[in-house]
Amino acid sequence: MAHIDLGLDEYEHPGITGLLIYRPETAKPLNELADALLRGPSSLSPGERELIAAYVSGLNECKFCAASHSAFAAAQLPGGMHLVDQVRHDPQSAPVTDKMRALLAIAAAVQQDGRKVTTQLVDAARTEGATDVEIHDTVLIAAAFCMYNRYVDGLGTLAPNEPQLYEEAAERIMANGYRR
Amino acid sequence: MAHIDLGLDEYEHPGITGLLIYRPETAKPLNELADALLRGPSSLSPGERELIAAYVSGLNECKFCAASHSAFAAAQLPGGMHLVDQVRHDPQSAPVTDKMRALLAIAAAVQQDGRKVTTQLVDAARTEGATDVEIHDTVLIAAAFCMYNRYVDGLGTLAPNEPQLYEEAAERIMANGYRR
Repeated sequence: MAHIDLGLDEYEHPGITGLLIYRPETAKPLNELADALLRGPSSLSPGERELIAAYVSGLNECKFCAASHSAFAAAQLPGGMHLVDQVRHDPQSAPVTDKMRALLAIAAAVQQDGRKVTTQLVDAARTEGATDVEIHDTVLIAAAFCMYNRYVDGLGTLAPNEPQLYEEAAERIMANGYRR
Repeated sequence: MAHIDLGLDEYEHPGITGLLIYRPETAKPLNELADALLRGPSSLSPGERELIAAYVSGLNECKFCAASHSAFAAAQLPGGMHLVDQVRHDPQSAPVTDKMRALLAIAAAVQQDGRKVTTQLVDAARTEGATDVEIHDTVLIAAAFCMYNRYVDGLGTLAPNEPQLYEEAAERIMANGYRR
């Protein structure tokens, strides 16, 4: 059970979904930020951006967000959940592009501390073809999930075990996006 | 200099301000979130909420955000910068209300990891009179600054030394809020 009374059935509205209903004033920009970062115009595909979100959520050990964005990435990448699992386990050996591997290294640095992003990490991404906007968006996606993860876990919300719940959420996100 | 080419004079647009100009698609929800959290309707005053933002930014050692939100808190709290410095140095001994002290303890837990927010910390805040919405907003403010801090530092933006620049920004925020 969440630390505060959300006034709803947490089994119906687990993780961040109950929080977004509880506080619509903050839900609106939180949803719009997720939509801009993960589904808005970008040279990174939605699947690649969800992969960054899943990877960072895994590093933060946020069960609800990691399961959600892993399912969202898997549904939008040819490699499916097997690829997502490989990336979350070891991005260095996972079969992703060298550009994606370099962006994931930047995301991992951001997850620890913004100051861990070195010129070397940025130059390495640029060498593999990453643009400045892609580097910007990678940093902000990783930073944003350091927020979403803390929001979801800091209020002690429910994280279901059933994979099909996250797969169903993926269908909804792909159909409707994050805006309500 | 920032890690990416923002296409502007960083001395004119330091810290997050240059990033918000660089990427308007994400600036809009980022500004709206800050406005809802720090200036929207709440039983916590804008000064109290800026104090939480300054405290968390200090824990994350984000120079630009800590200086900015310390100035914004100081401009809106009777104790001014002396109080802000006391809180950032040691919230346990600082002259704030017991409710504020309990909320700052929750914010410090969120800064480390959402899962560090215990039932004991939440119960302690409730005992001091904190409402569920105040606990929610404290968690989300602390989480949001774990994002803003990583965004600003992860892209290596400039943090000026001059206190008057942050004091001038405080006047602008109090007059116009965070929305553009």
